[in-house]
Amino acid sequence: MIIVGELINASRKKIKEAIDKADADAIKEIASNQVKAGADYVDVNAGVYVGEEPEKLVWLVKTVQSVVEKPLALDSPDPKAIEAAMAAHNNEWGQPMLNSISMEKDRWAKLSAVIANTQMKVVSLCMSDAGMPTTAVDRVKIAGDLVEGLTKLNIPLDNIYIDPLVQPVGTDYTFGIEFLKAVTEIKSKFAGVHIMCGLSNISFGLPERKFLNRIFMGQAVIAGLDGAIIDPLDAPMMGTIAGATALAGKDKGCRGYLKAFRGGLVKA
Amino acid sequence: MIIVGELINASRKKIKEAIDKADADAIKEIASNQVKAGADYVDVNAGVYVGEEPEKLVWLVKTVQSVVEKPLALDSPDPKAIEAAMAAHNNEWGQPMLNSISMEKDRWAKLSAVIANTQMKVVSLCMSDAGMPTTAVDRVKIAGDLVEGLTKLNIPLDNIYIDPLVQPVGTDYTFGIEFLKAVTEIKSKFAGVHIMCGLSNISFGLPERKFLNRIFMGQAVIAGLDGAIIDPLDAPMMGTIAGATALAGKDKGCRGYLKAFRGGLVKA
Repeated sequence: MIIVGELINASRKKIKEAIDKADADAIKEIASNQVKAGADYVDVNAGVYVGEEPEKLVWLVKTVQSVVEKPLALDSPDPKAIEAAMAAHNNEWGQPMLNSISMEKDRWAKLSAVIANTQMKVVSLCMSDAGMPTTAVDRVKIAGDLVEGLTKLNIPLDNIYIDPLVQPVGTDYTFGIEFLKAVTEIKSKFAGVHIMCGLSNISFGLPERKFLNRIFMGQAVIAGLDGAIIDPLDAPMMGTIAGATALAGKDKGCRGYLKAFRGGLVKA
Repeated sequence: MIIVGELINASRKKIKEAIDKADADAIKEIASNQVKAGADYVDVNAGVYVGEEPEKLVWLVKTVQSVVEKPLALDSPDPKAIEAAMAAHNNEWGQPMLNSISMEKDRWAKLSAVIANTQMKVVSLCMSDAGMPTTAVDRVKIAGDLVEGLTKLNIPLDNIYIDPLVQPVGTDYTFGIEFLKAVTEIKSKFAGVHIMCGLSNISFGLPERKFLNRIFMGQAVIAGLDGAIIDPLDAPMMGTIAGATALAGKDKGCRGYLKAFRGGLVKA
């Protein structure tokens, strides 16, 4: 499972304060902690700084990569911010990830030019101008459009991370199973692409959200999810990923599960 | 999800002591507690009493049904014990469940005569004289033999509960996913039958077994499991079933999940 650490997002109060004060140490600590906990990518988002997003995002890229030897997920719909962040990104630790493109016409037009013919990983939302998809069929359709469009931009299938978009099961009781069906169908129909998403939206509006999020993670791993944008410091969630991976037949000798147990991530 | 409460089993020390002393109150309390916690069937097992199993099983049937208005799962491979228990069973609360038949020649021969042309529910293990199955393919093959054989005995599909047999993922790292695939394939190939099993064997030999058991339950519900032989007093497991059922699109308005939350079963 590819883990994208989601914590360095300026919409979070603590992060905004650190950026406002140019408190590099605070950002570095959160970056290091996420990587120590297992993040493969560190997400950076400065979306709240309207007009200053490129420079703030560049500052985050440089600050984070001064302490962690990992590629980053560049989290913005703004092509200027992405281009600036790409230029600042140290590719020695791996190609950066765009978070994210979609089939919305305006977003596609702006970002496709930036990523064409690059080796970037591309998180690709199953969203069009028709709005958020609710059924598996809708998601598979948009995923097909994304794969076709990205392939034309010379993005290899292995660099495509489809996000089928989790919607709250409290809003419509079919939203969980329709998402899971979409994951399985997209993986089967477009062999070679990855599936990545944030999961916490599944429990929006319901009590004990983390309990439900973890069950859903276990189910999504079986369906074919192979990337997650999450808080890697959430130990029970990381333990759940380890357990679910073992149950999915992807953990020879259950070594990953046993390592998670020794690391204190697994507690009944 | 059909819940079979597993606690009244004479292989458990507390139960054996109660049976030895004919302590009906102890048995009644455990039966009542399981039903209050959501058991649809109460399993009764007196298998340790070699030579006295029929009379001990009959005593359990009568004792349990003196306090709970539920059908029982009659848990024995011995046709004499099953016949005696069937005669003692009060069908006013529903037909009893046989736990269990299998394709092992001797077991099949002895039990098929007992259940033929009855309305009993029949737990049917995917086991033959060739031993325990390890792959999905093996399980689906034996499930086919079971469905064919039971149908010839005039057992309606709706009364057939196939148990694909959970094997420990610590023994072979493919044992989790092969079980889950079998559940989905059996449900798809033999429409109308149910899938029931005990799950705890999945985590045998690994640490924090209950943690892994719950993840597996969430996954099995999506695969198509619709019955479980478990300890209904295990609150986090019952909460997991409620959450998994909501995520599987089988809980309109998430009412079951919210009820489980109010009952204290759901805790992040």
